[in-house]
Amino acid sequence: MPVVKLTLQYEGTEFVGWQRQAEGRSVQGALEEALERLEGRRVPVAGAGRTDAGVHALGQVASVEIAREMAPDALSRALNAMLPETVRVVDAQFVAPEFHARFSARHKTYGYRIVTDDVLSPFERRYAWHVRRSLHMEPMALACECLVGRHDFAAFRSTGTDVATTVRTIFEATLEADHDPPRLPSGGVGSTPSPALVFSIRGDGFLRHMVRILVGTLVEVGTGQRTPDSVVSALASGRRADAGVTAPAQGLFLVRVGY
Amino acid sequence: MPVVKLTLQYEGTEFVGWQRQAEGRSVQGALEEALERLEGRRVPVAGAGRTDAGVHALGQVASVEIAREMAPDALSRALNAMLPETVRVVDAQFVAPEFHARFSARHKTYGYRIVTDDVLSPFERRYAWHVRRSLHMEPMALACECLVGRHDFAAFRSTGTDVATTVRTIFEATLEADHDPPRLPSGGVGSTPSPALVFSIRGDGFLRHMVRILVGTLVEVGTGQRTPDSVVSALASGRRADAGVTAPAQGLFLVRVGY
Repeated sequence: MPVVKLTLQYEGTEFVGWQRQAEGRSVQGALEEALERLEGRRVPVAGAGRTDAGVHALGQVASVEIAREMAPDALSRALNAMLPETVRVVDAQFVAPEFHARFSARHKTYGYRIVTDDVLSPFERRYAWHVRRSLHMEPMALACECLVGRHDFAAFRSTGTDVATTVRTIFEATLEADHDPPRLPSGGVGSTPSPALVFSIRGDGFLRHMVRILVGTLVEVGTGQRTPDSVVSALASGRRADAGVTAPAQGLFLVRVGY
Repeated sequence: MPVVKLTLQYEGTEFVGWQRQAEGRSVQGALEEALERLEGRRVPVAGAGRTDAGVHALGQVASVEIAREMAPDALSRALNAMLPETVRVVDAQFVAPEFHARFSARHKTYGYRIVTDDVLSPFERRYAWHVRRSLHMEPMALACECLVGRHDFAAFRSTGTDVATTVRTIFEATLEADHDPPRLPSGGVGSTPSPALVFSIRGDGFLRHMVRILVGTLVEVGTGQRTPDSVVSALASGRRADAGVTAPAQGLFLVRVGY
């Protein structure tokens, strides 16, 4: 059967996460239900990466086998008509039969948004971590540089999932100020949503909660609770206790999967 | 009692609108409840403008009399601790006793967002009108120019509210493309939220549903269903039937109130 690569956006707020669970609505489950209605049979969905409850996606990728003859655009439209509005197929393409969303992925990019204003805009509450302290970007940027390269990230993961290795390669890790008040009409001074810090990281793979623990650790660097060097020490020790807190889910976005 | 000017942001999705109603949660009601807890008495709240159910605010203004001695920042913090997360006080200032949020307002700015992409991003669904047709900006911009000045907007309002006059002055009316994918980490091609058209209008006052009917009319100009001149005709005739449809509430933002 032909294999289709689906690119998906979703707002994770009301999902138990990407992966189908015993209880609650998952994104994978919503997609499998829509595909079952379309194909009249169970259609297994492979996703590029699992996202936790509350984590969003701008470019999650899923691969599925579709028996029905359909143009990719018609497939997108049919799925979007059945999916909840919080999940959208933004692209569909027929790909080589050996394509697999997870195993063929070469790199993934995650983004994480942090708002440090006193007041969190109502338009940010589902999409950012509200840190009520001022953060020093310079040491945070230094800490970001320490992440780039091939490292053992054992200190930066939640246990509970078996993995063959905790070594991952990070290609890029950056921190930027997002000064634009965008997506909303901009108004006068004081009436625009808060500017945010955006952490972006691209790597060949990520461990469970890895980005969120990295962000939690970076924020501790930004407040001065720890030094950029302490990130190097945590990488070296491999002990979870040497890394920082786990940042909340709602600031995290799976931005892109590269093949 | 000292008068305080509060600047508010809110997400209107789950409110029946600004104004207190017999049933349902209103923004005014939420603010009055918080003030009552703070002051131990009923505190009437005057808002600069009523917003409908689903309409958002980046800079709504309310005036209230506060007996309790408090610094403005402490007042904001106290109110934000009691208000739902969908309503935030972003500024509080003591003002002259004659200040009244509605009667002292000299101009108001509204913004309206329109997304024309095939697929509506999940991150846009509460904040934009999804028009599944391509819109020609040039005739829409011409129609915007016709709105500027002092006109009788009788054709551009929903009846049901008594007003002394339907004449209003529009200082600015513009249409801009919002190409930025912002407020979210940006990703690769195809993985970013849809660009939007943003209509902005500043005037000395607005009739019921006026901005939404103007937007509905402008969209009909953009699709070629009507000419920019037809807007001039509707202004001249004053007949509701000569204007366009009422655009949905969720694309509308009260951006700023000027004093």
